[in-house]
Amino acid sequence: MEVYVARKAGFCFGVKRAINLAQDTAKEANGVYTLGPLIHNPQAVEELRQSGIESIGSLEEMDGGRLVIRSHGITLSEMEEIKRRGIDFVDATCPFVRKAQEHVRRLAEEGYFIVIVGDRDHPEVKGLVSYGGDDVVAIKGVEEIEAIPRKNRVGVVAQTTQTIDTLKRVVEALLPRVSELRIYNTICNATSERQRESLELARKVDCMVVVGGYNSANTNRLASMCRAIQPRTYHVEVAGELRPEWFQGIRRVGVTAGASTPQWIIDEVVERIKGMGS
Amino acid sequence: MEVYVARKAGFCFGVKRAINLAQDTAKEANGVYTLGPLIHNPQAVEELRQSGIESIGSLEEMDGGRLVIRSHGITLSEMEEIKRRGIDFVDATCPFVRKAQEHVRRLAEEGYFIVIVGDRDHPEVKGLVSYGGDDVVAIKGVEEIEAIPRKNRVGVVAQTTQTIDTLKRVVEALLPRVSELRIYNTICNATSERQRESLELARKVDCMVVVGGYNSANTNRLASMCRAIQPRTYHVEVAGELRPEWFQGIRRVGVTAGASTPQWIIDEVVERIKGMGS
Repeated sequence: MEVYVARKAGFCFGVKRAINLAQDTAKEANGVYTLGPLIHNPQAVEELRQSGIESIGSLEEMDGGRLVIRSHGITLSEMEEIKRRGIDFVDATCPFVRKAQEHVRRLAEEGYFIVIVGDRDHPEVKGLVSYGGDDVVAIKGVEEIEAIPRKNRVGVVAQTTQTIDTLKRVVEALLPRVSELRIYNTICNATSERQRESLELARKVDCMVVVGGYNSANTNRLASMCRAIQPRTYHVEVAGELRPEWFQGIRRVGVTAGASTPQWIIDEVVERIKGMGS
Repeated sequence: MEVYVARKAGFCFGVKRAINLAQDTAKEANGVYTLGPLIHNPQAVEELRQSGIESIGSLEEMDGGRLVIRSHGITLSEMEEIKRRGIDFVDATCPFVRKAQEHVRRLAEEGYFIVIVGDRDHPEVKGLVSYGGDDVVAIKGVEEIEAIPRKNRVGVVAQTTQTIDTLKRVVEALLPRVSELRIYNTICNATSERQRESLELARKVDCMVVVGGYNSANTNRLASMCRAIQPRTYHVEVAGELRPEWFQGIRRVGVTAGASTPQWIIDEVVERIKGMGS
């Protein structure tokens, strides 16, 4: 059995940067916290915890120490609260997410009605929405287009891990309804390249394994895109979930991973698959 | 044989306005000129000529009198020449075209690379392009997308008589190539409503007749859209071109007309068709 690993699998620039910032902070400060998990991977978060970096649900749980703002960013009001409380913080928001937040803020200032294309329950999207003031809505895709009120000037910003097809379909549906449409294609390059490479791989193999947190939006999206091409697509968080029967009679296996999946987990998965092959 | 006439067939707001302005000017001034035909309909232009309104090819042909700027607008350099020569003029540019020109100008000022979706030989598009400075290209549709250089910030403006589908396809192709896409949907309502109504009609009848100048971009577009649905679609400029054999064995005929087609031509066409029916 041959195992092919996508070259772009695993940590992207923004995740690497966030982890480095958090680890550097842990060397300097006593008590390092993140508001919500730093990245969406339970194993990586557990590793961070062992280096003294604690994920908390609310700022009130902090007792001194330093806060690391996670890669997906936080809401404007959370940021204001951090400043009001005088909390010492390091901003590990992915620079691409930060840029998307700035686009939303500027669109709001210039009077556009803003449409965010993404999962409205995802922290990145919640953050983006918070910069849009009153005239903003988050939609999952074109199926929710009717939730958007009729407006003349509409601005569109995408969750950085969105697929270009979802964004395209929303834009196409909005176009006849508006007189001006200003779109920031904020899908990050790492995401679109990983998606493209993973889809190419899915076309060539008999079975795909997508590795990453079940709470990771970009991993879930990667899995559903691969599954549309290769129905034998399995999403696992760790090597222990792999089952030998998935690989019976299989000649070629493709492995890809989300932006928040640590290299050691990918390596373990690949080794375990090789051990299961005939 | 039943004959159905599209309600939105014929003169749009901008054409009516241009003709009224020209006729009012002809009552006041001695020697009234238009630079190129006022509208794209030879019969209407001939009528205007009989009221003393002459279409000229160059400003040098003017000898005093007053110039009426046609509904499609003119280029920035033509406008500058008119002003430099101190020519007395009335601006009959369609207000929707004027607005599109302003969008192009503003996009250029704000540093966007500009894409005009339209027929690059059409006077309206030539006018639009002239407001775009150096970083502007006109394309017919998505098939010419490769003519557009790779740019981060792209602005899109449509010829006012463009189809929404052509605009959609260009936008969809541009989106993955840029970081910001700012689209002005400058397709005028009269155009999109006339197209929609004509297509509905084409679906219901056994034969379509599209009336209007062969040099009229919006009439040609209307004819090709109808033909895609109803292959028995005929484009005529005047009633004299209708042929009885087109209507043999036909039960229902639909008639539509471009934005520059005078009502008297539509009426003549309808009467003639009725006379040919069995």
